[in-house]
Amino acid sequence: MTDIKDFTSQYGLVEKIDAFGYLDALKANPDAPRKHGKIVLVTADTPLMASRGEGKTTTTIALIDALNKRGIDAAAVLRQPSMGITAAGSKGGASGGGKASLTHPELIDWGLTGEMAAIAAAQNLLVSFAEKAIDEGRLDDILVPRVSEVPSRSLRAITVDAGKNNVAEKVVLTPTCELMQIVCLSRSMDEIGRRVAAMIAGTKDGKAVTFGEFIDLWRITDMLAGAVMPAKTETVNGSPVYVHGGPFANVSIGIPTLASVQMACSLHDVVIVEAGYGADAGAQKWLDIACREYGAQWPSAAIVVTRASTWRDDPELAWRYPFHVDRLEKLDIPTFPLVNLWDGEDDQIPALRDTAKELEFRDPIIGNLYRDGGEALAPQLDQFVDALVGGSMPAAPHSHKGMPLVENVRWIAEQAYGVPAERVVLKDGFASSLTEANELCMSAGVSLDDMAVVAVKSPATMTDNDRAGEDERTVTLKKVEVHAGAGLVHVNLTTSLTTPMPKIV
Amino acid sequence: MTDIKDFTSQYGLVEKIDAFGYLDALKANPDAPRKHGKIVLVTADTPLMASRGEGKTTTTIALIDALNKRGIDAAAVLRQPSMGITAAGSKGGASGGGKASLTHPELIDWGLTGEMAAIAAAQNLLVSFAEKAIDEGRLDDILVPRVSEVPSRSLRAITVDAGKNNVAEKVVLTPTCELMQIVCLSRSMDEIGRRVAAMIAGTKDGKAVTFGEFIDLWRITDMLAGAVMPAKTETVNGSPVYVHGGPFANVSIGIPTLASVQMACSLHDVVIVEAGYGADAGAQKWLDIACREYGAQWPSAAIVVTRASTWRDDPELAWRYPFHVDRLEKLDIPTFPLVNLWDGEDDQIPALRDTAKELEFRDPIIGNLYRDGGEALAPQLDQFVDALVGGSMPAAPHSHKGMPLVENVRWIAEQAYGVPAERVVLKDGFASSLTEANELCMSAGVSLDDMAVVAVKSPATMTDNDRAGEDERTVTLKKVEVHAGAGLVHVNLTTSLTTPMPKIV
Repeated sequence: MTDIKDFTSQYGLVEKIDAFGYLDALKANPDAPRKHGKIVLVTADTPLMASRGEGKTTTTIALIDALNKRGIDAAAVLRQPSMGITAAGSKGGASGGGKASLTHPELIDWGLTGEMAAIAAAQNLLVSFAEKAIDEGRLDDILVPRVSEVPSRSLRAITVDAGKNNVAEKVVLTPTCELMQIVCLSRSMDEIGRRVAAMIAGTKDGKAVTFGEFIDLWRITDMLAGAVMPAKTETVNGSPVYVHGGPFANVSIGIPTLASVQMACSLHDVVIVEAGYGADAGAQKWLDIACREYGAQWPSAAIVVTRASTWRDDPELAWRYPFHVDRLEKLDIPTFPLVNLWDGEDDQIPALRDTAKELEFRDPIIGNLYRDGGEALAPQLDQFVDALVGGSMPAAPHSHKGMPLVENVRWIAEQAYGVPAERVVLKDGFASSLTEANELCMSAGVSLDDMAVVAVKSPATMTDNDRAGEDERTVTLKKVEVHAGAGLVHVNLTTSLTTPMPKIV
Repeated sequence: MTDIKDFTSQYGLVEKIDAFGYLDALKANPDAPRKHGKIVLVTADTPLMASRGEGKTTTTIALIDALNKRGIDAAAVLRQPSMGITAAGSKGGASGGGKASLTHPELIDWGLTGEMAAIAAAQNLLVSFAEKAIDEGRLDDILVPRVSEVPSRSLRAITVDAGKNNVAEKVVLTPTCELMQIVCLSRSMDEIGRRVAAMIAGTKDGKAVTFGEFIDLWRITDMLAGAVMPAKTETVNGSPVYVHGGPFANVSIGIPTLASVQMACSLHDVVIVEAGYGADAGAQKWLDIACREYGAQWPSAAIVVTRASTWRDDPELAWRYPFHVDRLEKLDIPTFPLVNLWDGEDDQIPALRDTAKELEFRDPIIGNLYRDGGEALAPQLDQFVDALVGGSMPAAPHSHKGMPLVENVRWIAEQAYGVPAERVVLKDGFASSLTEANELCMSAGVSLDDMAVVAVKSPATMTDNDRAGEDERTVTLKKVEVHAGAGLVHVNLTTSLTTPMPKIV
């Protein structure tokens, strides 16, 4: 029994799919029919302002509409927008717009069917269990943060148990927490349980204590039963869209769940995976974490979205867009520039094409996707479709497991930000933070160097000084934080905020 | 079009119903067929320990199974359990148990389809908007608390914006917040919008500022779109059960949503409404707030659940159970004692019946409902069914609108706790708290005396000194808090906690 219908349930206006069950069924029935969809990575230029999107989701929606119009069975896998920062704020819903829209964007914008909320509750429950463990003398301190789905600047630094023990805490946005990472990276509920058990709750006498040592795992996995099921919706033109996993590749991994992508590849010929903010955040994480370390499929093509204004208006930063396109091409991923126009910019198309030619890009895809949707793209996709259909099904490059952390970060800085190893600077305090993290891992019986590196950075800058000349740019490493359950080590770079908790704008 | 099916959508294993839409349709089609179900209030003895339920939900489930077995179309309306304190803790799921169970208790226990989470997010978003209003100089302070669905003792008192402005806050459990009260009391999304607009966000220059003065209401109502739809599930024996609205009649109103109850009355002949903790909390609030002030239907019968142990084991507190039964009888509500046995207590049935006789109770209904479910009740329901079927459809007594707050509280103390007006004591600070609340209301253009009183109290005590003689018991009023949007004024009594934020036990 490997019919996806048997794994699909109606939830109001969307469907939800038992992706774990479906993937298990495919595994158990190797001869059952399935597709082997190719992955297209939609990423973007580094935005000038993090609060104004380049239009990755709008592009993704227009693209599947255009491909389906050309007779290609294409689906998209989107990340669930962070309700607070997008829908509540001025940025918009992170669910496309105009003709490149979903049928029920309000559902996606305002919490879907409670996936993010369940993850928030489960992460906060872990903190409460840790608090109970402190009361019982099993733990001296807590290393997991509470989360909030609603942004609030005053939650960046809080003191809990005020007037008594006055414990300093920070609150992070739900999509950035370790439990969200675990949901994104796991292929089964068992794996989620194992990873939650391996999460470091805090320390006792200086040694790591994992949640597996004191909680009932079933409480957490029961809580996540609905959250692990991708939602299925569609574009206003009827193209299939799966929504699962949280955003924010600046401060976390920011990728859709691997299970939802794998499921989509079994059901469709082309699967668009959206990952951002810019390529330095989203694409880097999809390639170097999801593919290289967690077995996700390497992209058969990529699209790098920019605005004409992002590409054009700040000459000092104009190096970034071609850098991203070149980097992906060098990885043998056919990479297509896509310029998402604002109203009134149509007359700039010839100049944009000229610039693309000068830069030796593939022919750029250009359109006002909000206004025209997939229709603006369909006639421009010949080269893209040729590259995709004709291309191979590439394997991901080898893992970096075992590579010392600093070497790994230097490699990322060189590959993804164009800053060579010698200009990766260790800030005062970084060495001690690294030692501490190493000792914490050792006491938990795991190795820091076996973890995938999550570069925590500003969404709008690639280096310490993007406006400096190429030979002067540096990257500074500030501190290290271990997410042992997710198998990730966070390294805070450069201009990153220490707490990813925005305010409503 | 008044077929409930047209207002019902599948959400995984449960259904959700557009109750507002259905009630509107009935109103617009006065000749359309509908039922006029009678309400049975299931409440309980004051528990010896708040962490151990008497079994209201188990009773409610067993009761509808027993009534349906007798050919009576009976449904239950349950409150959605508070995920953290019940499912995560030792208390259990607040969704029945054993033979008196729901088909999918795990769904109800762990957040249903995100209703509570959406209300939490919306209430927290209101706080974030208020914070933005402070930044913009429109507000000097914030009077609405943040909420958490997960209990955590260290959230009882927190300091936010730590290291900068160091603002003291408390965090309350989601079900106790004003937005949950608004969802429970409103009959339409318009009413919710109006009530959110009337919520007092904080003050500017000493005067109340309401949310209507600075937020986009649609963001809050959009967020609540799914939360206002009751869920429909069923017992393992197939009896219909609606789940909607939050618990905790000790620190809030603790009633199911009025819309879900009204809807159920249009669909079934008998509707069981569950309200607790004890009758001094849940029944008092259903009668004096829901019915008297908000137009809910007055019960045609009541059942007061106790444990043999609660009734029997502490002679000093044994006055409470007959007090509750007598009080309801005096209100012309036929009231049936029900003793929910633990294992090994069957041999006590004759003694329990004797005691009931001495107290001049109606014949008590006695059974081990966990073990035997509705089968234990069905043969004992003759008197109950006679009273219910033969009884009238009573109107709620007149409103207390305009009654001065202290007089209103004294009336409640006398009626619901057996403490006469002269032994209702105003604690130091109460008078100034009342004056402050009055001034706040006046500056918002509303009158404190027009609001329904919510007595905030311990779930396990009725007075300052339940163990004292009847003539010595007192009730102390501590402070006043206004929920202008919900139209409620909270008065903290006696032993109430100042912050209803438990820890995980």
